[in-house]
Amino acid sequence: MTSISILGEAQLRELVPLDLAAIDQVEAAFLALATEAVAMPPILRLDLPEQHGEVDVKTAYLPRFDGFAIKVSTGFFNNPALGLPSLNGLMLVLSAKTGLTEAVLLDNGYLTAVRTAAAGAVAARWLAKHDTPHVAVIGAGEQARLQLQALTLVRRVERVSVWARNRASAERFATEMTATLGVRCEIARNVHHALVEADLAITTTPSRTPLIEAADLHPGLHITAMGSDAEHKNEIAPAALAAARYICDRVQQTRVLGELHHALEAGVVSAQTVFAELGQVIAGRAVGRTHASDVTICDLTGTGAQDTAIATLALARVREAGAGTIFRNEVKC
Amino acid sequence: MTSISILGEAQLRELVPLDLAAIDQVEAAFLALATEAVAMPPILRLDLPEQHGEVDVKTAYLPRFDGFAIKVSTGFFNNPALGLPSLNGLMLVLSAKTGLTEAVLLDNGYLTAVRTAAAGAVAARWLAKHDTPHVAVIGAGEQARLQLQALTLVRRVERVSVWARNRASAERFATEMTATLGVRCEIARNVHHALVEADLAITTTPSRTPLIEAADLHPGLHITAMGSDAEHKNEIAPAALAAARYICDRVQQTRVLGELHHALEAGVVSAQTVFAELGQVIAGRAVGRTHASDVTICDLTGTGAQDTAIATLALARVREAGAGTIFRNEVKC
Repeated sequence: MTSISILGEAQLRELVPLDLAAIDQVEAAFLALATEAVAMPPILRLDLPEQHGEVDVKTAYLPRFDGFAIKVSTGFFNNPALGLPSLNGLMLVLSAKTGLTEAVLLDNGYLTAVRTAAAGAVAARWLAKHDTPHVAVIGAGEQARLQLQALTLVRRVERVSVWARNRASAERFATEMTATLGVRCEIARNVHHALVEADLAITTTPSRTPLIEAADLHPGLHITAMGSDAEHKNEIAPAALAAARYICDRVQQTRVLGELHHALEAGVVSAQTVFAELGQVIAGRAVGRTHASDVTICDLTGTGAQDTAIATLALARVREAGAGTIFRNEVKC
Repeated sequence: MTSISILGEAQLRELVPLDLAAIDQVEAAFLALATEAVAMPPILRLDLPEQHGEVDVKTAYLPRFDGFAIKVSTGFFNNPALGLPSLNGLMLVLSAKTGLTEAVLLDNGYLTAVRTAAAGAVAARWLAKHDTPHVAVIGAGEQARLQLQALTLVRRVERVSVWARNRASAERFATEMTATLGVRCEIARNVHHALVEADLAITTTPSRTPLIEAADLHPGLHITAMGSDAEHKNEIAPAALAAARYICDRVQQTRVLGELHHALEAGVVSAQTVFAELGQVIAGRAVGRTHASDVTICDLTGTGAQDTAIATLALARVREAGAGTIFRNEVKC
């Protein structure tokens, strides 16, 4: 007989808030990627073009973690017409010792949102200047909110310049962020204006054409680009990427899915370059920021290692709290 | 609010026995592979060498099926020492329209065993002679039992010759199969003797060295080789494969995982050959058996399409029976 914990979105939102523990857990996953025998196969991708749907499956085994996640993310873009959200998904947690299923986390993508925002905070910790009072946020959706919230857990933020294609969204974002985070938040009239005085910028859009050009960079700026998780998405112009110190979550992914992919295709950076990963910077094995005047870009596509990190944190919290529905399953032997 | 059905192994064994409906459902999946815009990405494989563990994730979208499976299979080979089975796993069923999770089938690999045996019966239906009273079974484990049981649902079987590396296992197999299926079952002293008078042979072992040589073939024989689902496994000698008409479940897989892989590597068949798939034979688009004297080999590595077939059958049965635990999950929008 095995016991499997089953949890829904509401319970997981309560048990796993976006907090410093989540950021530290995701940081540990990045460090493991650089220093341990992590197994992280390429993403499994299923396309359902007739249904305007897509499915990604990610997984990673991290030697120091008791369990590993198998994470399913779905995007079905006819859903809003049916009154349903486009993005959904769940995480399975399996024991790294026995392979038995320990938990089914029916989070509808919530834990992915948390681990993605946490990665942005890790990038800021290791790559931004120590003092970043002025932050530019490009995009005004759920990740824009969570990225800014995560950043305030690791850096003092006083002033935010937000830009979004839809001005009404930017206004709602500004009102909400001022109320919840106590930051001064203004609407920028374009991306250039948002960045011009910023110490740190976060891009969170699904844009297919670059939003940040080389002319938008200035000494000391750090950019975390987390919008691109598919080959057709692109937020940073190739020339801007080439002009900055480039760091990413996983080179194997950013070569095909991230901002790097577009810069390689444009020929402005060489495919032979050894690109640095965030975990290598944390481990002291690659160079991040060396001067306050450096311009750094962190290209985040999302990794199975982050999923394993957040899912095992969630399971630990579930057990501590005695939360969830327990399903008892017979095991033949 | 969405409702997710959660079922354990015992319930699934009751609701989804190995029957003609399962065989027909798997046959429909093979036909779809040959005739429809099926999306079936390569298998996601995670290796945990420190844990002596491995995980496979398979999926496939079949246009005429309402849902699709994401199937996780685990093999953790230290488990027997812990009193646990090595092989486990589960299937998720997602709506092909919305991507929402509809069911979590905690089957511990049972549905995989059923759909694998069902595929053997489909291969026999389309490739074996009409009359196959004498069957050779190589291997005496769970799949040997299920393959023989599935075969009796589509062909009259009178006599079985079984060979297994472990004679005691072969004896248990013979006793059980005589009792449950009413077939005469004898132990063969080697593979050659098992096959010499057989009309149909089924290989179900994890062997890493060929068991069937070219000299074991004779006119009219059909072989279903289902043991190889990994690059190092091999049941059919390359020369035997080259001497028969070769059909497989999915060329994309058998080129790297199946018996074909070894024949290609040995250079006895050309990589340029257009290999036939079982679904193409069913659809009349490729040649299977044309004469009673043909020798045919069907190389089965297991496909995500079969998983989607059996999982959607399971979900239909769950709903008919009102079975399972319903988990209600909030959906934000």
